[in-house]
Amino acid sequence: MRVVCLSGGVGGAKLAAGLHDVLAPGELTVIGNVGDDLEILGLHVSPDLDSVLYTLAGLNDTERGWGREGETWEALESARSWGGEGWFMLGDRDIGLHLVRSQALRRGETLSGVTGRLIRSAGLKTRLLPATDDRLRTQLVTPAGTFPFQEWFVARRHEDEVDALRYDGADVSRPAPGVIGAIEDADAIVIAPSNPFVSIHPILSVPGIREAIERRRVRCVAVSPLIGGHAVRGPVDRMMRRLLGGTTPALVTMCYKGLLDALVIDAADETAETDGAVVVTDTLMLDRESARRLAQTTLEAAMETPS
Amino acid sequence: MRVVCLSGGVGGAKLAAGLHDVLAPGELTVIGNVGDDLEILGLHVSPDLDSVLYTLAGLNDTERGWGREGETWEALESARSWGGEGWFMLGDRDIGLHLVRSQALRRGETLSGVTGRLIRSAGLKTRLLPATDDRLRTQLVTPAGTFPFQEWFVARRHEDEVDALRYDGADVSRPAPGVIGAIEDADAIVIAPSNPFVSIHPILSVPGIREAIERRRVRCVAVSPLIGGHAVRGPVDRMMRRLLGGTTPALVTMCYKGLLDALVIDAADETAETDGAVVVTDTLMLDRESARRLAQTTLEAAMETPS
Repeated sequence: MRVVCLSGGVGGAKLAAGLHDVLAPGELTVIGNVGDDLEILGLHVSPDLDSVLYTLAGLNDTERGWGREGETWEALESARSWGGEGWFMLGDRDIGLHLVRSQALRRGETLSGVTGRLIRSAGLKTRLLPATDDRLRTQLVTPAGTFPFQEWFVARRHEDEVDALRYDGADVSRPAPGVIGAIEDADAIVIAPSNPFVSIHPILSVPGIREAIERRRVRCVAVSPLIGGHAVRGPVDRMMRRLLGGTTPALVTMCYKGLLDALVIDAADETAETDGAVVVTDTLMLDRESARRLAQTTLEAAMETPS
Repeated sequence: MRVVCLSGGVGGAKLAAGLHDVLAPGELTVIGNVGDDLEILGLHVSPDLDSVLYTLAGLNDTERGWGREGETWEALESARSWGGEGWFMLGDRDIGLHLVRSQALRRGETLSGVTGRLIRSAGLKTRLLPATDDRLRTQLVTPAGTFPFQEWFVARRHEDEVDALRYDGADVSRPAPGVIGAIEDADAIVIAPSNPFVSIHPILSVPGIREAIERRRVRCVAVSPLIGGHAVRGPVDRMMRRLLGGTTPALVTMCYKGLLDALVIDAADETAETDGAVVVTDTLMLDRESARRLAQTTLEAAMETPS
């Protein structure tokens, strides 16, 4: 069984880890968002790819919720003391990976190439593909101006309301090698419980990816990032309210118009309106075991014979 | 009083710190070797400049003898685990500086420009100038092949005998801004107790620097890197034996032919042959206080009326 999972950062990484655990080795391909990549201190940082990598490899910090476990911050503190940018939190172990990747990219390796090497270094059989090897950067249009994702999210603490999003570079980007093939060969497609606007839409904005999912002959199932209408983490609820006028499951489905055969939602979001294309379960992933349960339920929803 | 000090790494940095302490703020200019600079993990590393910077700022590790005090090694260990080069020891705090410098160089800043910013970040009034902003790399010709300095010194543990040295790039390099002016304006010139072949000769190989010292109207004094014919640290004694046939003070003077008015040697190296151009003292710098004493003696030798 071959499964493709479109994933953003932390929430997506958790579901990806659950899928990785319940599938046989090599059955899972994760297509990761690169819209929130950034260059800082001369390093190319791919936060969403790294969240998936660290989580799959069991290296992630489960308490803090992002980055690596047992992380230290000496290099960043030192860089700050020498006048370097210090607003983006880079741990020492994290920097070790960024150094390896940045060096490879400067030598002309592709992002998908180096990501594959990193995944193999961690001994993982799951494939992790960036949506594109080309430069694609999510920009948030707010009343205070337009900001690259990390500047809005980290430096400005995602306090500015979002009126619109731009995926700069998307129009001329190409899917990374393997992305379209993985979608076409998949027995099921899963959209992780990530923020549609800043995690999944950037992936879908790469010409060819949305179209490949639209012409699927298998089921595509998304997991809602909301529990009781609230974000488990991050600003997705606020963004949905401002951009779509609410946080109902129907509005999540609307984010993926033409792409979904079913939406997995939390029991807290079940209403009278909930129709047959909705699967209700407990979507909170508190640990790897609950991620596996949600992955199992999601896969079952994806393998159901379409009604 | 304006003093110029030509310096390599650890030994040079100690004397530079001694000079920094005994001179008034702003009186000292250190011209640092860049022949052992390297690019590793995508970082531009200038080990000799950093030894001077860390020692002047009191950030150096006095027990290990190189690098920063309280250093940790998480980023390097992580980089290794992801397939990155791990043979060159880069501590986390050290990496913080390398990130800031590498980013600045990639943006087009000069090495002397960013070095000046780093010195000012540390609150230091001493000037630290790389000999050149251009690429200059010391190569060691050995029976096992020709190696860049750090590959020979660190990766191959300076076990290969050295038959000759090359300063690649020196012929087309230009002195960094301020270097020639500092030498011309100096009231005294000091050559630190660094390895002549791999620390001082690369500086002198930059066209214009040797000539500026040769036409001095002030005294130039070197401090021998030997104590009792042995290197305090590193392979200078072995190199001198193979390249010059011995380790006497006269052979140290020969390394700086045409440049020296006096050589400061350790009492352990005093012999009957020792002539008037030699100043005998205790040259072992065990701590900052002994570095200050040696700096004071060296300055006195440099300020003597030429006989």
